[in-house]
Amino acid sequence: MNQDAHSLTLAEIATRLGAELRGNGAQRVNGLATLRDAGPEHITFLANRAYLKDLADTRAAAVLLHSSHAQSCPVASLTLANPYLGYAELSRLFDPLANRESAGVHPSAVVAEDARLGEGVSVGPQAVIESGVVLGDGVIVGPGCVVGADTRIGADSRLHANVTLYHGVIIGARAILHSGCVIGGDGFGFAHDGKGWHKIAQLGGVVLGDDVEVGSCSSIDRGALGDTLIGDDVKIDSQVQIAHNVQIGEHSALAGCVGIAGSTRVGRHCMLGGGVGLSGHLTICDGVQVTGMSLVTNSIHEPGIYSSGTGAMDNAQWRRNAVRFKQLDDIARRLSRLEKAERGA
Amino acid sequence: MNQDAHSLTLAEIATRLGAELRGNGAQRVNGLATLRDAGPEHITFLANRAYLKDLADTRAAAVLLHSSHAQSCPVASLTLANPYLGYAELSRLFDPLANRESAGVHPSAVVAEDARLGEGVSVGPQAVIESGVVLGDGVIVGPGCVVGADTRIGADSRLHANVTLYHGVIIGARAILHSGCVIGGDGFGFAHDGKGWHKIAQLGGVVLGDDVEVGSCSSIDRGALGDTLIGDDVKIDSQVQIAHNVQIGEHSALAGCVGIAGSTRVGRHCMLGGGVGLSGHLTICDGVQVTGMSLVTNSIHEPGIYSSGTGAMDNAQWRRNAVRFKQLDDIARRLSRLEKAERGA
Amino acid sequence: MNQDAHSLTLAEIATRLGAELRGNGAQRVNGLATLRDAGPEHITFLANRAYLKDLADTRAAAVLLHSSHAQSCPVASLTLANPYLGYAELSRLFDPLANRESAGVHPSAVVAEDARLGEGVSVGPQAVIESGVVLGDGVIVGPGCVVGADTRIGADSRLHANVTLYHGVIIGARAILHSGCVIGGDGFGFAHDGKGWHKIAQLGGVVLGDDVEVGSCSSIDRGALGDTLIGDDVKIDSQVQIAHNVQIGEHSALAGCVGIAGSTRVGRHCMLGGGVGLSGHLTICDGVQVTGMSLVTNSIHEPGIYSSGTGAMDNAQWRRNAVRFKQLDDIARRLSRLEKAERGA
Repeated sequence: MNQDAHSLTLAEIATRLGAELRGNGAQRVNGLATLRDAGPEHITFLANRAYLKDLADTRAAAVLLHSSHAQSCPVASLTLANPYLGYAELSRLFDPLANRESAGVHPSAVVAEDARLGEGVSVGPQAVIESGVVLGDGVIVGPGCVVGADTRIGADSRLHANVTLYHGVIIGARAILHSGCVIGGDGFGFAHDGKGWHKIAQLGGVVLGDDVEVGSCSSIDRGALGDTLIGDDVKIDSQVQIAHNVQIGEHSALAGCVGIAGSTRVGRHCMLGGGVGLSGHLTICDGVQVTGMSLVTNSIHEPGIYSSGTGAMDNAQWRRNAVRFKQLDDIARRLSRLEKAERGA
Repeated sequence: MNQDAHSLTLAEIATRLGAELRGNGAQRVNGLATLRDAGPEHITFLANRAYLKDLADTRAAAVLLHSSHAQSCPVASLTLANPYLGYAELSRLFDPLANRESAGVHPSAVVAEDARLGEGVSVGPQAVIESGVVLGDGVIVGPGCVVGADTRIGADSRLHANVTLYHGVIIGARAILHSGCVIGGDGFGFAHDGKGWHKIAQLGGVVLGDDVEVGSCSSIDRGALGDTLIGDDVKIDSQVQIAHNVQIGEHSALAGCVGIAGSTRVGRHCMLGGGVGLSGHLTICDGVQVTGMSLVTNSIHEPGIYSSGTGAMDNAQWRRNAVRFKQLDDIARRLSRLEKAERGA
Repeated sequence: MNQDAHSLTLAEIATRLGAELRGNGAQRVNGLATLRDAGPEHITFLANRAYLKDLADTRAAAVLLHSSHAQSCPVASLTLANPYLGYAELSRLFDPLANRESAGVHPSAVVAEDARLGEGVSVGPQAVIESGVVLGDGVIVGPGCVVGADTRIGADSRLHANVTLYHGVIIGARAILHSGCVIGGDGFGFAHDGKGWHKIAQLGGVVLGDDVEVGSCSSIDRGALGDTLIGDDVKIDSQVQIAHNVQIGEHSALAGCVGIAGSTRVGRHCMLGGGVGLSGHLTICDGVQVTGMSLVTNSIHEPGIYSSGTGAMDNAQWRRNAVRFKQLDDIARRLSRLEKAERGA
């Protein structure tokens, strides 16, 4: 990847990050790299003690780190209370996708006459904007995207290539929607007449708050009657399935391959590990973490860490039992021996 | 969502549903909502005892319910033996997507000269219809869809935006295919020569029966030699993976994130919960239900409910064992104590 | 499926496969089918003893098999040391997609002026090739694909319809990318400030080696700083999620619905069963197999077969314990009875 789109002085970076600079503020860097890989044209960072061993040998122009490590830094340093947060901001300074000028509406795009496009909107090649759509200022719609009728997208949101939004979806500001994701497809609703299935038309919508990110190939289904609701600052990874009428509280994060069944409500500040499954019609309170590939079949009313092989339980309890599960055949044989000894006694 | 596309009188609705009306048949409603959310312009329904408590306070114009609850209904009532089935039909009466007139072939679509399009076919913007394709009467192909060469789609089927069908796929009548789904991609077949992989060309196809629905971002792979077969009235949710040469019997339903490995046959009237995995080359008989995230590694020859943490077993058995799994560390410690006591005795 | 695109003589097939022919070399066949389904116009194969029973009754023109079964073959035979490998090669001889002539750049495609297209490149309808892209000789880009800026694709690679490649992705030679797959979307990286999430721009790329296949609707995320790396001859099935900075060694195969969390390194010649999950920051050595739907939360340093219901363990150990898990309630009751007997004694 070419990360050299532009260069910044260390003084500029320190100002943007609110960091304290020690070193030559006029020195320019044109990219960001790890402690090990960084060269003299790069800035790097130390946010995890595990990499402290690499600090002395770095060839970077400067290191962003905590003040407690500044003494050990062999090159220019920028100190911050939370260097990982600083790394996040630094990464965005060198993001080649940021601050692109609007490319306008590509001539190959098909935009309905009554669609309303804000200032600085970009619509990529082969994209389709259906009737009644409203795109806020600075929205970027990538190549091949389809934005269904009456859908509204808030300012500065970005749809990467080949995103699909159905009709009547509402997206907040500053959303990032990755390629292949689908928002607003029908929820999985059918009535059975004893012989076969009758479709329940999915008449609700999907509402995403502000600052939501949705990963590649993820799907968020529209509600059956009310809406599927994704709160502000919710981060959703790739290959995630969110069923109809699910609600996700603000600031929650869902890792890859999570699946949430219909009408389940997830609280605020929750974190679901990769591949976690939540059954339908559950209530998960605020502050719950579920470890990877756990199945949750009951509501959770206490914040904490939950895990399962066979059904969710407290993480510490799970660890003890999982060790014993590996001894289960031995346990059973020992029990049989004891029973025989008892019968013999 | 605007559900107000049109309005109907209660008498019209009663006739369509075959329901018995008590109240003013001339009254018009223009939408469907839940007991709680419905206003005086809406019709609502009661299909689950859990919501009976909301009946007395409903502000709806009318309620669709079972005759046993009609006495408690404070407003007009429509009674049916199966109100949930009635709700399904009612939802379709108010579906803004239903009964759209054909929009014809959009000028930006690319349609092969030899493709055969039935009456009333719609092909959306940026769609691609390859050579030899046959689209039955009333087929709707959404924006950005690609229909591969020689693929045939039955009457009144609908492809939402950005659906991909490979070459030689056969889709029955009244199918609903959601955005991002892919039908006919290569099955995962390779031969190993001791050093690396040699691709096995996937020469079979995919055949979907009538009334099949496939959710967003799901994939159904083509057969290696014979075809992958999906029976009539099979309902497939989002993020589902169906491998080559799988067969799914009529009226079965697969919830989100299910994965079925190659050549497995699933019977009729089966229900697979979210995230269920079936190994390859299995036979699952008619009438099998598998609960969420279970792994099935052996064929199932008896109808029933199956579950697993570690391998599928009968649901009732599984419940007892899963409770004990949480006590496993305690069980092991108690066993050790008994063994010590025995040695001491 | 029409597999009759062309016909070959048995002598031609024997030469191409390096097989020994017994029978009439001038006889023509125009397709490949299973022992049971093959007719007199087909060649078939026997690569699995389970199908030996079908050999005597085959109606095929010829059978590809091991020399040890040639005596039992009622029709012409082609013998090879590894008939399954021969089947792979045979399947490609009858692949209707092989050896297509270039269709050039479709007039509806949007190709950046500075993109460099090798000889014999095909770009399908509605595709988008962004600025700085390099397509090697013989590359096929299917309808609706989007190839992001500065992405490079090696010779003879094929993108089926509606594939999305982000900017700066590198694809080797002879890749096969199936519809709906997305390569180069952002990794899932955020820093938390105690209140909410701050995006970490994903500045790395994705590099695929030669001979890589990626299934429908799979996603491979770009690296945070360095690249996500997929080695030569890696085969990836459908619905797979590969997170940022993952590395997969040469010749490894990942079945459907696998999920691999960030920065995990998988060795060479590994095989991950369907739905397997690997936690982040692990190292999996060469030659590891993990059975379906297992969760791996620790690094693996010994080649072998691993499985889990509750945490990965050796496959043989797992089988014994999984049987006991079904007896767990009984085990616990028997233990309680022993304890009571002990207290009574």
